[in-house]
Amino acid sequence: MNKVVIVGVGLIGGSFARALKKAGAVRHVVGIERSAAYGARALALGIVDEVATDFAAVADADMVLLAAPVAQTGRILAALAPHLSPGTVVTDAGSTKADVAAAARAALGERVRQFVPGHPIAGRETNGPDAAIVDLYVGKKFVLTPLAENAPADVEKVAEAWRACGAIIHRLTPEEHDKVFAAVSHLPHLLAYALVDDIANKPHADLLFQYAASGFRDFTRIAGSSPEMWRDISLANSAALLTELDAYMAQLAQLRARLAAGDGATLEAVYGNAQRARRQWIEAIEAAEAPPPADSAE
Amino acid sequence: MNKVVIVGVGLIGGSFARALKKAGAVRHVVGIERSAAYGARALALGIVDEVATDFAAVADADMVLLAAPVAQTGRILAALAPHLSPGTVVTDAGSTKADVAAAARAALGERVRQFVPGHPIAGRETNGPDAAIVDLYVGKKFVLTPLAENAPADVEKVAEAWRACGAIIHRLTPEEHDKVFAAVSHLPHLLAYALVDDIANKPHADLLFQYAASGFRDFTRIAGSSPEMWRDISLANSAALLTELDAYMAQLAQLRARLAAGDGATLEAVYGNAQRARRQWIEAIEAAEAPPPADSAE
Repeated sequence: MNKVVIVGVGLIGGSFARALKKAGAVRHVVGIERSAAYGARALALGIVDEVATDFAAVADADMVLLAAPVAQTGRILAALAPHLSPGTVVTDAGSTKADVAAAARAALGERVRQFVPGHPIAGRETNGPDAAIVDLYVGKKFVLTPLAENAPADVEKVAEAWRACGAIIHRLTPEEHDKVFAAVSHLPHLLAYALVDDIANKPHADLLFQYAASGFRDFTRIAGSSPEMWRDISLANSAALLTELDAYMAQLAQLRARLAAGDGATLEAVYGNAQRARRQWIEAIEAAEAPPPADSAE
Repeated sequence: MNKVVIVGVGLIGGSFARALKKAGAVRHVVGIERSAAYGARALALGIVDEVATDFAAVADADMVLLAAPVAQTGRILAALAPHLSPGTVVTDAGSTKADVAAAARAALGERVRQFVPGHPIAGRETNGPDAAIVDLYVGKKFVLTPLAENAPADVEKVAEAWRACGAIIHRLTPEEHDKVFAAVSHLPHLLAYALVDDIANKPHADLLFQYAASGFRDFTRIAGSSPEMWRDISLANSAALLTELDAYMAQLAQLRARLAAGDGATLEAVYGNAQRARRQWIEAIEAAEAPPPADSAE
């Protein structure tokens, strides 16, 4: 590609730029950054070749990546729409996809065909341009969630860029994506936040935390994530998250009844099923970290 | 001590024996083992000096440690009671304490004064004599939960033995212990098992597990624990666990209502409170891993 524009040059956008450059997949990278400090830093680090504050910078780009907070997607797309050339493909890296698709349709109208949404399954606990690393996406999944309006060639162009970053391309619809991540990511985050908040609000919280050990530490690690980001994800995906939460609360109510009845056989069956399923999952990860199963990969 | 008897020479009992020996705190260690293979292996590894199958072996012991599954505590105490000398102190390593205290009173009658219950907060995912290591307890908490019937000198004798293994001695009543661990250990285990079982039972479980990532892996690590052991812990501590589970389910119901109402401010407040509390807890751990606060330590 001749020119790629990255909106938001933090961990996600900066790592994408670094990886594309290393792969020789781009000639010129422009960063659009609200934060003058981030923009200057990204330039100094060589992550971008140029910093712009005006969305007119997207005019002759081959590709635009939105890597700003997902709640800003609609606003950003509306701002860049007047400058969008017909040959430019726009993509994003947001953690929720149905809301992004809806925001894109509202902001872009029929030019939504140029917007191919996606979600790289990678992250770190740090942020900003200094956190950006060249190999963040190597061996990680990138979930493409194309729209019915997208041209196959544009979808492939986005897939090719992420492949150049080392990612393994998967494909789901935006709705499938949101259901899957509600179950395996968004719900666990909510559950971990809820447990720590529950304990922190008890009068003897200090005593409790004093005896919390490594199991508690791992269980609640995701409760160390950004509250603002997870508020946005929870709200953006609230329909799917509520469905998963309701199923989980029904499961807890059943387990509660079995526990109150002293039904050790059922408790052991549930615990044993969970242990077995988790072991199979871990073994599957370890056996095939790199190539995804043929039926799910692009 | 001249003679220590370990009932169950697996990870917990074997590591206690190894650590006492290394500290020069015992002359002769006898293992009582139902499994002939474990007994022979513990002898071959030098963990014990002698293996017995008859509880008469406790007759002239200075100390007896019960390190068999906690559900067997009553049976074991009843079996060793006829052989118990007045000068012998018996202790245990079970994960629940009120049920152990009740079982001890039932099995030992007035000689329950010789039984000082406790709980080392240490473990690994392996078991058996080969898993036993000399430094398992170094820097770890040992929670002494003495009974009203215990003589202070006997309580101190048990504390001294665990101190010799490198543990930091804390003290709670059996009831306090069970309430604390219901909140910070038993409930998280139940929640993790419930989530994995919930997902594993969905028709599209394979798709979901395919996209589960490191956050899910950490959140559910404790669902890899022994189903039998956690069935026993859940049942033994069901009263305190039900109390914690009910509080958590009420918390989830509140969060569900806020999520359904699109109340981002409350979600962010709960998530933020959890993130803050967890950060403070982690900082407290890191700042003072070794010496416990004066008001909680022995």
